[in-house]
Amino acid sequence: MDISSLFEVNLDPDANAPLYRQLHSAMRDAILAGRLNPGERLPSSRALGKRLGCSRNTVTEAYDLLTAEGYLEGRIGAGSYVSRTFAEDWVRDRPALPREQKNAGPPRLSRAGRALAEMGSDAGPDMNTPRRDPIGPDPAAFPFDAWARALARAWRRPDPDQAFRGDPMGYPPLREAVADYLRKVRALNCGAEQVMITSGAQHALDLVARLLLDPGDAVWIEDPSYRGARAALAATGANAIPVPVDKDGFDAARAAEIAPDARAAMVTPSHQFPLGVTMGLARRMQLLEWAAIGDRWIVEDDYDSEFRYTGRPIPALQGLDRAWRVIYAGTFSKAMFPGLRLGYLVLPPGLVEAFRAARLLLDGHTATVGQLAMAEFIADGHFPAHLRRMRVLYGRRRDIMLHHLRDRLAPFLAGPPGEAGMHLLAHLHRGLDDTAIARRAARAGVNCQALSAFHVGPNRRKGLVMGFGAVHEEAIPGMVERLAGILRDGTESG
Amino acid sequence: MDISSLFEVNLDPDANAPLYRQLHSAMRDAILAGRLNPGERLPSSRALGKRLGCSRNTVTEAYDLLTAEGYLEGRIGAGSYVSRTFAEDWVRDRPALPREQKNAGPPRLSRAGRALAEMGSDAGPDMNTPRRDPIGPDPAAFPFDAWARALARAWRRPDPDQAFRGDPMGYPPLREAVADYLRKVRALNCGAEQVMITSGAQHALDLVARLLLDPGDAVWIEDPSYRGARAALAATGANAIPVPVDKDGFDAARAAEIAPDARAAMVTPSHQFPLGVTMGLARRMQLLEWAAIGDRWIVEDDYDSEFRYTGRPIPALQGLDRAWRVIYAGTFSKAMFPGLRLGYLVLPPGLVEAFRAARLLLDGHTATVGQLAMAEFIADGHFPAHLRRMRVLYGRRRDIMLHHLRDRLAPFLAGPPGEAGMHLLAHLHRGLDDTAIARRAARAGVNCQALSAFHVGPNRRKGLVMGFGAVHEEAIPGMVERLAGILRDGTESG
Repeated sequence: MDISSLFEVNLDPDANAPLYRQLHSAMRDAILAGRLNPGERLPSSRALGKRLGCSRNTVTEAYDLLTAEGYLEGRIGAGSYVSRTFAEDWVRDRPALPREQKNAGPPRLSRAGRALAEMGSDAGPDMNTPRRDPIGPDPAAFPFDAWARALARAWRRPDPDQAFRGDPMGYPPLREAVADYLRKVRALNCGAEQVMITSGAQHALDLVARLLLDPGDAVWIEDPSYRGARAALAATGANAIPVPVDKDGFDAARAAEIAPDARAAMVTPSHQFPLGVTMGLARRMQLLEWAAIGDRWIVEDDYDSEFRYTGRPIPALQGLDRAWRVIYAGTFSKAMFPGLRLGYLVLPPGLVEAFRAARLLLDGHTATVGQLAMAEFIADGHFPAHLRRMRVLYGRRRDIMLHHLRDRLAPFLAGPPGEAGMHLLAHLHRGLDDTAIARRAARAGVNCQALSAFHVGPNRRKGLVMGFGAVHEEAIPGMVERLAGILRDGTESG
Repeated sequence: MDISSLFEVNLDPDANAPLYRQLHSAMRDAILAGRLNPGERLPSSRALGKRLGCSRNTVTEAYDLLTAEGYLEGRIGAGSYVSRTFAEDWVRDRPALPREQKNAGPPRLSRAGRALAEMGSDAGPDMNTPRRDPIGPDPAAFPFDAWARALARAWRRPDPDQAFRGDPMGYPPLREAVADYLRKVRALNCGAEQVMITSGAQHALDLVARLLLDPGDAVWIEDPSYRGARAALAATGANAIPVPVDKDGFDAARAAEIAPDARAAMVTPSHQFPLGVTMGLARRMQLLEWAAIGDRWIVEDDYDSEFRYTGRPIPALQGLDRAWRVIYAGTFSKAMFPGLRLGYLVLPPGLVEAFRAARLLLDGHTATVGQLAMAEFIADGHFPAHLRRMRVLYGRRRDIMLHHLRDRLAPFLAGPPGEAGMHLLAHLHRGLDDTAIARRAARAGVNCQALSAFHVGPNRRKGLVMGFGAVHEEAIPGMVERLAGILRDGTESG
């Protein structure tokens, strides 16, 4: 009988896989399914090729591979046989396994895996889910040409020792540039040797949480707060304790009443996210005292330090620290673009070696591709120029949005719209359901987020977080107008 | 008296920080140190500028910033005073904090942090510590020009939706290319929707361990094995169980005797690292059965699939799996360069959503910079061409090294040198101390690693792991000759 009938094979010259591999798979499956029996003699390559309408060579290659894998025995010429060595034990009586996973139950994840999968599945825009995040920078304003040139210049003739294999701490020239910028503009107390380049701020927070916090450790977080900070804690099993933020920012005294035994605090002192308030000096000194005296860590997330439109930048908390308790995290995502995934940590000197060693094992280092280009982009002056242009652009959009919010939303506002980085915050009267309003706004094409969605604790303020970075000026009036309409309906219906 | 004497200030126009910020820091420190007392009136900006020999404007800017920060009170013009609001509580009676961290004890790390810091601090070359890893690819042979052009082409006019902000699963065209390659060349059973682009293979293993394993979970690992796999387990607190590898590779039956309750297995079936043996078919079927029946995971690390010099590539374990228990990990580090930090996971369909959601929160996604360029590099045919060139180059180096090892090291070898990916393995007689020999070789400029260093269990084989990828042909004979000399001395002295 025709042995080739034992394995369904339909050799397709246009398929992805070459013919010999198509034949190989068909025969392998037939052997594993027990349709070709152990010890069975196979036809000669010429004969089978003839029957299948393929070249003898195709069959020989398939036989060779099956032999190398142990499915077949014997030498080409002396004829090939289905192997007995494995078949007895493994092919016959094998339970037929489900081909599709759905037949099996849902796959088991680790505790951390379950927590992250759950948080991530309903991650809001603050977690960069949508491709266009109005709180993010504007793609239309990014100088792709200059960036492409920086990439080409950086990679045409790079120093192989720097480019081919990276340093766990980051590309030295980029670390120098970051330290220099942070000293000058953010008044940080640091040298390049304390800077670790990370794959974004989110990755930086994750590193810090993994290396400094044990499961169950209590950590103060701001309420409301950035979901990414909470995620980093959830991933390590640390216990995030929400502490209400008021007009002076995070309050360590209040936090100490809620959770006296906290090991660390995750804060955004310059621009609280999403409220936009600045942590006052007294509060800063108090928080630093708490950390210094109790050997605790402060994680300062300075996520959008580059964009201030009124007054001078408020120096970072790290610059006030005299006990090396502050770990500072920053990012290029707002000033450049989120896909770049370049951020940085400024570590206390005592943590540098541990972080370097651990990073080597976790993900090696941040890719050199973007690091070399970013250093080039800074060195040739394109970065500062781009920053200046963006400050003007975003500042104008901010003013227009602020004007229209005050003008059109006045009756619904509980206070003056607050300012922060790349978004405005419109505080709504308690009575209004900001979640429902944000949902309706989204349907009307207005991308804004409910302030209450950033809250963890029970006391949830009502408001709308509205990005202006990626919103074009001419679109703003209509956007606010639609929002006013939605608010009118909301209050009438409610 | 001259108030400026109260704060040591030495304005330096050449310093990094602008003059106003130098003055600001000096005054802030004086206030915090209590040298400037709460309520104290400050000289007019003109007067202080005159004394310090700087412009009035510099002083005004420093005063403005100090006022914004809450250190000073009062309006410019009406005069500025050292603030009382915070001073009472925070400046007076403040304990003087150590300026240097060394005064404090060693910083406290998490359990994972300590484990990683310890493993990483003595990480051998298999963890990419040295810039030149002979097991890695050869920088001198990498087409930087073509790569720079691919970067420029990919980024001059990219699709902003793809470039500006990445997908947690990766850049779709790159995922397609990876799935296509793996189906054709590695006989994987997968579609692009199962592929997640990671920041290197190490990062891929870390993701898998975090999302699937809980602290204390038993996991089978190969002995000897890749340190990176053990690190990923150590970071999650999983319990790595070493299982001796023989000439047929990893043995699930033996593993089941040692640790019957394992939740997962981390293996390198195609080329066991560092032994280079291939897992036989019977062993593969056995391992797959174990996983399928017990809802366990198999992590297949196919770290250097691109480089085989004899026979045809052995298909991946994943292609034999009928129960979706195999998670496949690969990397571009060997075919391209390690600094690229591009790797990939092929996930069972049931894990895709959980991994996507979790990835969003952990580090967002892998940077788009390298992904767009890599897809371009593949699409324009440069990648396959580069691979072909490297196979020829490395194959030649392998043959030469193999020849010289056989020729010069024969008396010391316990068996024929084994072959794997980008290194050779010279098995030494039990009597020889491979660690001491590798150390002496390093001093003699011969970069090789002791096989026993890759072992975890007590039964440590002796041998030398010698990379040839980045070793130039003309250097090989002298290198082996020096090694022979070291071995002669070693045996004479021992």
